[in-house]
Amino acid sequence: MTERIDKTAEIQRSSIDIEEQGVRLRLTVVDTPGFGDSVNSENSWGPIISHIESKFEQYYRDESGLNRKNLIDDRVHCCLYFISPYGHGLRPIDIEFMKRLHDKVNIVPIIAKADCLTKTEVKRMKDRVLREISEHEIGIYAFPDCESDEDEDFKKQDQELKASIPFAVIGSNTVVEVNGRRVRGRLYPWGITEVENPKHCDFVKLRNMLIRTHMQDLKDVTRDVHYENYRLGRIRGGGTQLHRERSKLKRDSGVFDEVAEKDRMLEQKEVELRQMQVMLEKMQREMAVTQRNSRGDNLQYDDRRSSTVEV
Amino acid sequence: MTERIDKTAEIQRSSIDIEEQGVRLRLTVVDTPGFGDSVNSENSWGPIISHIESKFEQYYRDESGLNRKNLIDDRVHCCLYFISPYGHGLRPIDIEFMKRLHDKVNIVPIIAKADCLTKTEVKRMKDRVLREISEHEIGIYAFPDCESDEDEDFKKQDQELKASIPFAVIGSNTVVEVNGRRVRGRLYPWGITEVENPKHCDFVKLRNMLIRTHMQDLKDVTRDVHYENYRLGRIRGGGTQLHRERSKLKRDSGVFDEVAEKDRMLEQKEVELRQMQVMLEKMQREMAVTQRNSRGDNLQYDDRRSSTVEV
Repeated sequence: MTERIDKTAEIQRSSIDIEEQGVRLRLTVVDTPGFGDSVNSENSWGPIISHIESKFEQYYRDESGLNRKNLIDDRVHCCLYFISPYGHGLRPIDIEFMKRLHDKVNIVPIIAKADCLTKTEVKRMKDRVLREISEHEIGIYAFPDCESDEDEDFKKQDQELKASIPFAVIGSNTVVEVNGRRVRGRLYPWGITEVENPKHCDFVKLRNMLIRTHMQDLKDVTRDVHYENYRLGRIRGGGTQLHRERSKLKRDSGVFDEVAEKDRMLEQKEVELRQMQVMLEKMQREMAVTQRNSRGDNLQYDDRRSSTVEV
Repeated sequence: MTERIDKTAEIQRSSIDIEEQGVRLRLTVVDTPGFGDSVNSENSWGPIISHIESKFEQYYRDESGLNRKNLIDDRVHCCLYFISPYGHGLRPIDIEFMKRLHDKVNIVPIIAKADCLTKTEVKRMKDRVLREISEHEIGIYAFPDCESDEDEDFKKQDQELKASIPFAVIGSNTVVEVNGRRVRGRLYPWGITEVENPKHCDFVKLRNMLIRTHMQDLKDVTRDVHYENYRLGRIRGGGTQLHRERSKLKRDSGVFDEVAEKDRMLEQKEVELRQMQVMLEKMQREMAVTQRNSRGDNLQYDDRRSSTVEV
């Protein structure tokens, strides 16, 4: 009984090297089996927060050391938070988890196993989840605005992407045949759900966003906001919340323009340092509360050639 | 936060009069929204246990009173326990709930929203749930053996029914058209799931079992085992576990043969009374543990002309 109540999320990492538009990157997926499974899930988020902070801490130590040119960026750049379709909107554990994580990692909410929801139900569920996220002041990853000089197709695609949040997805580890095509899908007595069919679910949108259009922005926000919060807290034993002006989304946002970014950050830091003393006490109180104790699958980019933050 | 952690299951009752094979009965369905939704669900089962025991208590007082000829049987005769398909087998809360309820009510486990599981997954899930029920020594409602003189069709039907436990079901509150037929179902972009199609789910089996073939047995077991346990505990401040010899399933088990039943019960009681003193201490310890504290939907037959237990 105690064992069951105390049971909490495991951290399971697996990495894969992928090549996308000529850019080789190492994608590390962190699964957290057991999250929210126990009768009392008050400590479920503990191991996940610890994992994220341990990666920040490792990076912080590495960039303070001698070898800062060959920094390995193992920070968690995105957390795909799977919301159960079995229920009506967010459960308390979803709210508690996201509120505890939203200033540490980019949270992208996902509706899991969406093939048990009809089109109407998916829409209703998405509306409700978004409303509840707003009501509880949860800061999920904010998709950046589109550059005004981008072409109409790109803008339309970006609008559709934003309109799909939270992404409703279906998963499958089997390949089935539909009208002669072999597709990744799920075979039911009443039909076949296709993972990569945009009429069936948002999987393709999510994949494009993660490894193509928004990869760099997820890394930028991690570096400029979440990690920076951690670093400031580390230096002063407290911290302040960074809310940098968001950069605009560009088609080829996979290129790393660190120099301009760094100049901007330096300016910001002047302001922030002054605010910090005031915020210090507040943060310490908050951190004491956060020390208490949820299922999130954390996706993390581990691109060995980028994200060196030097100040 | 405290409010959320302390949030627990509500009890919502609704009744309907149905007529089945000339027998009029009042079916009361008790829903328990909120069950297992809180971060800490350690008290989720409390309101459900209280509800079941309050109905036993009401019956106990009524049958001890003057008006015992017109007893209203409001006891909970069956608990349909819905297991989430979103997971791998039973969650700790499922195990805790069923262990706390299995000696108070007939538990019929159900796999909910089964249209997100393929045939293979349904089978795997059923096998796993049954294995875990057995491993954790959970006493779900035991379907009685078939009378050996029943015809082969009836025996086969009964075998199929037993092989379907835990029933995998789909629900729908909409009617859709399939090849010109209007059916209760769910319209997906990849097909239509039909609630009453045995190839799609076990709903028809479950309905037949509940309101036709096994209704009387569910009531008998409630009266002879669960209520009797309650009553004995009530009389002596403790109790003993009753495990009566199961009656055989007959096609027309909807007829109430109370007299023979009562004779048998009287004989049993002689034996049990002797065991009771020994068991008393053990039960009191168990009850202290059970006082601690889950989603179960409780179905209850409220047939106003039956189940009068007089001793």
